[in-house]
Parts: sequence; C-alpha cells; structure tokens
Amino acid sequence: MRTAAIVGAGPIGCSVGLALRRHGVTTYLIDADPEIAHQAEQRGAGIAGAPAQPADIAVVVAPPGRVAPVLAEHQKLGTARVYTEVSGVKVRLYDEARAHGCDLTSLVGGHPVVGAGGSGPGEAREDLFEGRPWALTPTDATDILALNCALELVALCGAVSVLLDPVAHDRAVALVSHVPHLIASVAAGRLLDGDESAVRLAGQDLRDVTRIADGNPDLWTEILAANAGPIADQLDGWAAQAEILARELREIARSGDAVPPERLRETLRFGAAGRARIPGPWEAQRT
Amino acid sequence: MRTAAIVGAGPIGCSVGLALRRHGVTTYLIDADPEIAHQAEQRGAGIAGAPAQPADIAVVVAPPGRVAPVLAEHQKLGTARVYTEVSGVKVRLYDEARAHGCDLTSLVGGHPVVGAGGSGPGEAREDLFEGRPWALTPTDATDILALNCALELVALCGAVSVLLDPVAHDRAVALVSHVPHLIASVAAGRLLDGDESAVRLAGQDLRDVTRIADGNPDLWTEILAANAGPIADQLDGWAAQAEILARELREIARSGDAVPPERLRETLRFGAAGRARIPGPWEAQRT
Repeated sequence: MRTAAIVGAGPIGCSVGLALRRHGVTTYLIDADPEIAHQAEQRGAGIAGAPAQPADIAVVVAPPGRVAPVLAEHQKLGTARVYTEVSGVKVRLYDEARAHGCDLTSLVGGHPVVGAGGSGPGEAREDLFEGRPWALTPTDATDILALNCALELVALCGAVSVLLDPVAHDRAVALVSHVPHLIASVAAGRLLDGDESAVRLAGQDLRDVTRIADGNPDLWTEILAANAGPIADQLDGWAAQAEILARELREIARSGDAVPPERLRETLRFGAAGRARIPGPWEAQRT
Repeated sequence: MRTAAIVGAGPIGCSVGLALRRHGVTTYLIDADPEIAHQAEQRGAGIAGAPAQPADIAVVVAPPGRVAPVLAEHQKLGTARVYTEVSGVKVRLYDEARAHGCDLTSLVGGHPVVGAGGSGPGEAREDLFEGRPWALTPTDATDILALNCALELVALCGAVSVLLDPVAHDRAVALVSHVPHLIASVAAGRLLDGDESAVRLAGQDLRDVTRIADGNPDLWTEILAANAGPIADQLDGWAAQAEILARELREIARSGDAVPPERLRETLRFGAAGRARIPGPWEAQRT
C-alpha cells in the first residue's frame, strides 16, 4: 500500500491517517468541512485534498446513514481502487450500498472496535487501533484483492483483523456491544427511580457497569436502531431470564431459604465463565 | 471512642483496626482462627485477644448467615457496650438477630460500600473506607448513644455515614449493587452462546460492564439470596422493559425505519440522566 484516501477526517479518520503515515503511506484527507481536513493535515495525518490518481484504498468515515451515499459518490469519482468504511452495523450497510448502486466487488465493510471518542481531529491518536479487534466483512461479491488491501490497512494500523460475514458480524456486535450498552442504560436509568439516600450507596461497581451509558443518546439510538433485529432477538432472552430469576427469588423470599437458589447460582457461575472468554486488553501490555 | 473490638480480623476487620489505630483507638482483634488475629496484630491493626473490660464498640465481620449468632454470643460475653456489623443485607439481619435473642438497643446494622477484596489480613488497607459511603440502619429500638458511637466509628474510618431504615437499605442495595451485579453476570454468561469470532470483537466497554461478574459465584449467590424480595421486584421491571424494547426493535427491523425508535431513545436518555446521579468517587480526589 502506497496511497490511501481518508474520507471524513474526524478523530477516527485522522487516527487512521496518523497510523498510516508512520509506515510511509501517502494519505489524502477529504472532508465535507475543509477546515477539518486542514486540521487533520496540521496534525500530520496526510495531505488535505483528493488524490490526483486513484488511491490504493479509500476509508470512508461517516455517520451510519451517510456511509452508502458517500461510498457511491467516491466510487463514481474514482477516488480509490478499493473501498472500506468503519460503521458498526453491516447488513444494513450492504443493503444501502446495493440500493445506491455501489460496486460491491471493491467494497470491504470494516469495523474497528474502539471507543466512540470525541468529535475533532485533535482527539486522534496514532495508536488508537493498537491491538484492537477490527472486523472485516467481505461478501461473496468481494474481490480477494480488495480484501487483502483491507487486511493490509488493518495491519498498518496495528489492529487485529477479525473476518466475519455481515450477518454474523451484526449478531456478534449485538452480543458484545449493543445489548451490553442498552443494559447499562437501563441500569443507569433505574437510578432515576431511587431516592437520594439510595443513590448515596452507589460505588465503583455501579460506576463500571453503567459507564457506557454516558454515550450520546441520539447517536446510540441511531446505532442500535440500525441493528434492531439481532438486538431484539437477544432481548427476548434477557426478558425470559429476568422473569425466571425473579420467580425463583420471589419463592426464596417467601419460603425463607427452603428453595435452593439454583438458577441464581447458575447465572452467577455462567457469568464468571463467560467473562473468562473476553480476550485480554492487548493494549495494556503494549503501553 | 477509646476502645474497639474487631470480631473477625480478615481484610475488612483488619482495615477497620488499621483506620482506628491511626486515631489512637485501642483495638482488640478476635477471630475464630487465632492465626488470623495474630496476622492482623502483625499488620498493626491492634492487640490479638478479647478486651478485659467491655470495649466502646464491637465490629462483627462474618459471613451473612453467621452474623446474628456471633453477635448474640458476644453480647452474652459482654465484649462491648455497642455492636455493629458490616453485612450487605439488613432486614434479614435484624430478623435473625431477633431470633437469636440479641439485644437490639445496642445494635446498629452497618454496611461499608467497598469492593469485596481478598481473604486475608494481608490485603487490608488503612484507607480502604476513605470517602466511601457506609450505611447505618438503626431501628426504632436502637439507643441513640449506640447510633452516635457507630457514627464515630464511620468517621474515624474516613467514610461517609448514610442513614437508612433497614427496608430502604435493602431496596437501595438491590438498585445500586445487587441487580447491577446480576445483570453483569447475565451479560457475561451470554458470551457462552457466542461463537469464537463473536467474542473476538469484545472490547473495553464489555470488560467494564461485566467486570463485577468476576466475583465469587457462591458468595454472591448467598448475598443475593439474602435480599431476594427487593431484587425480584426490580427484575420484574427489567423483564418488562426488555420486552417493550424487543417489541419496538422488532417493529423497526420489520418496517425499515418507518417506526420511530421512541422507547429506545428514551431508554438511552434516561440512562445518561440516571448516570449523572451517581456520586463522584471521592477517593480519586483524595489520593
């Protein structure tokens, strides 16, 4: 990879530029707001403006609903030979890309799993992706050369490629990200029902469980709504499990320990076992 | 306060001893295992052995089901004039104290909100309670002098007293601790259903949401079962909310955005608002 075009030079796009520049890739910074592209250039993420020749790859960073039209526009302009993007939901992306007449052979859906971050190039970091998972979601239509180009992009950013088909990807992010986010929001929202003395007892554990509920509600509404089906499937399981646990606990409360807390114990044991499946934070060992 | 008896000299009891010693209180360290009392003495938490005269206060640290019998035993021995303990659930404690014939006038239920910690005096810290909430749950039977003695204990440990009646306390810990713990366990347990590629996408957000699910499952089964009623009440609300969200999301998935995500947006907004109610971590500013 010699050249890359970053379409959308906010913190994610600018971080990609900074990471690629470390490896000598010539990067072009394109943004609807020329001032953002200029700021990213000032940060050292590349050259503001479109490439004169098609770049080896274009990385589109845009709000979920805008990705497909921006892709279609740049494929028409011929900004690059291969296209990827970084949105969090993939089935809908490919549906919209098809609807906008995008060329699917040169498109590789991508999803670097990093915190949402701030809103300007100033918050970009060249090591933002170090050791993080970065999903790539090729389809049957994807050219193998396009996929290899996307794999190189991920490697140059220091991240770990995880290949998934779009349906599996969306189920996976529902499991490891979207439903946990929603659950954290429900837990935090329930504090509105507690009186002040109750909330005074909150400690670090509650702070951790609910931290991601601080995210921008409107942005997260858009993200979660885009993955509505897989999230709904999981919430059905949540509702059923909450009901089963509530029923057992109510029997325990009524009987005074005559009922063994079997479902409760199983839930806590499965929780400890499931937690052991979460991969360690590589970045902690690298810094 | 001149003298205190610590009954149970593990990490919590030893930390209380260390905190009181800073202020010149003479502390006696009692433990069913004399080696533990000896270790706590070596740490500087006080003198191993029972006081010759009744201490100003006794702090009982024991597994939930053992607190009432230990209290009853030491009230008979006359170990102190005032008794407190540090278990996480209060309605059941007072029920059991009554059943064991404890004197309720000299008893003040207490609950310092700190992490579960390890299992030996070696993990004790004199600043373990600094800036942390410490619930005290007097009843109508509690002598005001006993309550004031418990308030002094909390102040000497550097913690912040929060007065609650036992029923309100148990509802509060269900809200801010027990249900969040259970929910974290459910979220972590669901990872057992995910295939390996899905789990590879897990990041720091999931690590935070599920961190407390690492707790000892058997200990937490005992803690949660002791507060079964208030937890069941809240889980009913969780189940209902999960169902409502699942229904809305399924309609969104079916209709392709024709349905506005109103309940979803409300949940995320309430979450951000509820999170703002969590008091800040004082300890971070003090250290």
